[in-house]
Amino acid sequence: MTDAETRVLAHIDGRRAASVEEIRLAIRQPSVSRTGEGVAAMAASVRDALTALGADARLVPGDRFPIVEGTLVVDPALPTLLFYDLYDVQPAAGQQGWSVPPFAADMVTDAQGRERLVGRGAFNSKGPLIGTLATLRAFTEAGVALPCNFRFLIEGEEEVGSPGLPAYISANRAALAACDAAFIPYFGTNGRGETIIRLGFKGLVLVEFRVAGGDWGGPARGDIHAANGALVDSPSWHLVRALASLVDAQDRLVVDGLSDIVPPPASADLALIETAAQRFDAVAHRADLGVTRLKDLGSARALLSELMLTCTLNIDALQAGRIEEGEGAATLIPRTARALTDLRVVPGVAPEAVLGLIRAHLDRRGFQHVEVLLRSAYPASRATLDEPVVAALIDACSVHAPDVRVLPIHAGAAPMHWFSDVIGIPYAFGGVGHGAGSHGPDEYILVDDVVPFMKSMASFFYRFAQRRQAASGKTGPRC
Amino acid sequence: MTDAETRVLAHIDGRRAASVEEIRLAIRQPSVSRTGEGVAAMAASVRDALTALGADARLVPGDRFPIVEGTLVVDPALPTLLFYDLYDVQPAAGQQGWSVPPFAADMVTDAQGRERLVGRGAFNSKGPLIGTLATLRAFTEAGVALPCNFRFLIEGEEEVGSPGLPAYISANRAALAACDAAFIPYFGTNGRGETIIRLGFKGLVLVEFRVAGGDWGGPARGDIHAANGALVDSPSWHLVRALASLVDAQDRLVVDGLSDIVPPPASADLALIETAAQRFDAVAHRADLGVTRLKDLGSARALLSELMLTCTLNIDALQAGRIEEGEGAATLIPRTARALTDLRVVPGVAPEAVLGLIRAHLDRRGFQHVEVLLRSAYPASRATLDEPVVAALIDACSVHAPDVRVLPIHAGAAPMHWFSDVIGIPYAFGGVGHGAGSHGPDEYILVDDVVPFMKSMASFFYRFAQRRQAASGKTGPRC
Repeated sequence: MTDAETRVLAHIDGRRAASVEEIRLAIRQPSVSRTGEGVAAMAASVRDALTALGADARLVPGDRFPIVEGTLVVDPALPTLLFYDLYDVQPAAGQQGWSVPPFAADMVTDAQGRERLVGRGAFNSKGPLIGTLATLRAFTEAGVALPCNFRFLIEGEEEVGSPGLPAYISANRAALAACDAAFIPYFGTNGRGETIIRLGFKGLVLVEFRVAGGDWGGPARGDIHAANGALVDSPSWHLVRALASLVDAQDRLVVDGLSDIVPPPASADLALIETAAQRFDAVAHRADLGVTRLKDLGSARALLSELMLTCTLNIDALQAGRIEEGEGAATLIPRTARALTDLRVVPGVAPEAVLGLIRAHLDRRGFQHVEVLLRSAYPASRATLDEPVVAALIDACSVHAPDVRVLPIHAGAAPMHWFSDVIGIPYAFGGVGHGAGSHGPDEYILVDDVVPFMKSMASFFYRFAQRRQAASGKTGPRC
Repeated sequence: MTDAETRVLAHIDGRRAASVEEIRLAIRQPSVSRTGEGVAAMAASVRDALTALGADARLVPGDRFPIVEGTLVVDPALPTLLFYDLYDVQPAAGQQGWSVPPFAADMVTDAQGRERLVGRGAFNSKGPLIGTLATLRAFTEAGVALPCNFRFLIEGEEEVGSPGLPAYISANRAALAACDAAFIPYFGTNGRGETIIRLGFKGLVLVEFRVAGGDWGGPARGDIHAANGALVDSPSWHLVRALASLVDAQDRLVVDGLSDIVPPPASADLALIETAAQRFDAVAHRADLGVTRLKDLGSARALLSELMLTCTLNIDALQAGRIEEGEGAATLIPRTARALTDLRVVPGVAPEAVLGLIRAHLDRRGFQHVEVLLRSAYPASRATLDEPVVAALIDACSVHAPDVRVLPIHAGAAPMHWFSDVIGIPYAFGGVGHGAGSHGPDEYILVDDVVPFMKSMASFFYRFAQRRQAASGKTGPRC
């Protein structure tokens, strides 16, 4: 470790309180892309933070909310990292289970006596986003030069499917492709203290299944009296039966032909899963998730294979009719019934291919009138162990965390294919530090993990620069 | 026809405009028992109308909203009719398909050039309720004595399952049982000009199916990230699969053992269905319902048998997760999923028996964690052709309508078992006049049918008194 790195790490220790406070301030600024609440203010705040770092930063239009872009060039001879993150969050209003207000950034002591910073976005993704910006600030404050250049791409629409990203990437492809690698910071330490590096992400496809009465049958004009259910098709029953045909008794997607298009897993991935299965702690995993029982799928290997090697379909929302105040509903055949779902696809499986199979599967069973509406889609993506950016992140985490493990994929989706496939640069995802509760109530990060997280980022920057330069002997400007 | 009856019928012709206006005023007074809107005001208005008729009338407590009760004794020597009706209506707020405001009582000319009085409750049941009160008023205005006595039982909670009726009947059983018969007025003429008298009602059971994550599996504390769907049971999928197991490809209830507890249809009922099937006009029936296609069940006999001889389960509402503004939903496994349903049972099938079969059916398929919550229930009921009250109604309708037909049952439910089974008196249900759209948008009655409806009521009162007195030779007081 160089003297410069040592000085930066010491400075990160020294600014612990300031770093935590910076994250808390960001949580207190809601930025709910689903509703628009606070998004514009958060975008401005991130841009200002970049400007304060000395970056050339600005807001550029996304679909509905701006993308924060910027560059921070230390020395054109150094390699460049593309720092991707999101500044938007999922909604929390009306969500059951919060023990503190979701945008108060309260400190809560957990059962193990650890202090949690609780709030919407703490873990996904304001902790890592603001923690990484604080890391960059630590270099400036310590008077230490950054070991690489940065390009920033911080979007505010990730939680609604990144609708503005394609146009942005298309318009900036050359500049983005000139970066050496992308990275996405993450509090990657689980509840057992294992820091997990994942080599990819599943793809995410938002699909609405919708049945409305019409020429095929059912109420054609408006809801009709329930007594006619003996004679009139019910869109709700058709939706229920169509959905039920898509899964087995373990809720696994069993669409006709799907197994034929899922590539067989790579032996390297199976080996990573086998290693993970040997260490799998079901009790701790359940506690992390907030569940009493996992599905009864057999061995730990079976569970992890299911998680990492299969395409899944989750029901995000069901809606038909109206539940009134007082918890009753009018006795009607609702004209329309809907299910909002998210389909998660593994690498090598194109979203459109699965949608085509679902369409054919439903048609084959007489559900031609069940609409399958694509709301957004991006495919899975992969990184590999031998990329400098990946190896650097694993190295850096190993310096600051006792137990670093590698898994093939993250079942949580992120549009990393934009980097690996569209822009065509490798990426790495991870970092030291524990958090949990993404999208759910009482989302948190551990307060004591803010410093280790920042240290893992600082060390990652050094290792990336070293490995990248070693790999290419590169000295010229890229980004 | 007596001179007195002729004078009353002439007076009904003369007060056409006033009668229509009285119904419009009642529609303009919302009385939505689901939300409470306007219910108290409507109750007072009905009580005042009874008082103005010379009845001894008052409000007595129901479950949440009052019951209007009263007596109108003309001569203790005459038989007594128990007039049952409802003054509450289903909600209309937010319901798609209304072409006019639901509580404006607008006049709309239909495709056949007929004037419709459109509004929530026009058909179910303010048209018949207020039309019957207007009929009684016509006797007073014409200076003609009523041919029988009346007892009034007008509830304001029928559309939420009549929760206050059991206690009321229990407290007043002797007085109610002293009535000779009950009647429920109805605009019983369909779109083809056929006036239908139904000899019974299916029973209505409101059931909620509910799945919440807990010890059995699924999110135990709050919604969790959708990526975990591979490992964690989804209450929504379990609800969908459990519901789908209850019906066949025609949405028919196929609960294990159900067919064993449904009594075989009486030959008299099969004969009535056969007659109805020969006259069944599918085109007109579809138009009445507002559907383009009926279920593909085969013959008209099959359709009508399905409607009248089977138990059905309708989905009134489905709910899981939250569909946000912008029509998206957070990518979560919702902790809770619900279906609000109405189960309609035929005579001879106890609601509890079907619920028991559903419970066992779900348990047998591993759905022990799917809760089946009984919200309210009443059984089916039957009348018979040879009761004076039924024969009198058929007679009276035949005087004022060209085409009167008899069917075994109404698939729409009403708590008539309280009369036939609990109080133990016969009842009749019907009247001349066309209306449609019960519980749905653009509910209406034909304006020109208000007078024929009232005439059928007036003639019914005469014929009931004659037949009842002939049947019993009764002269003493009953009610």
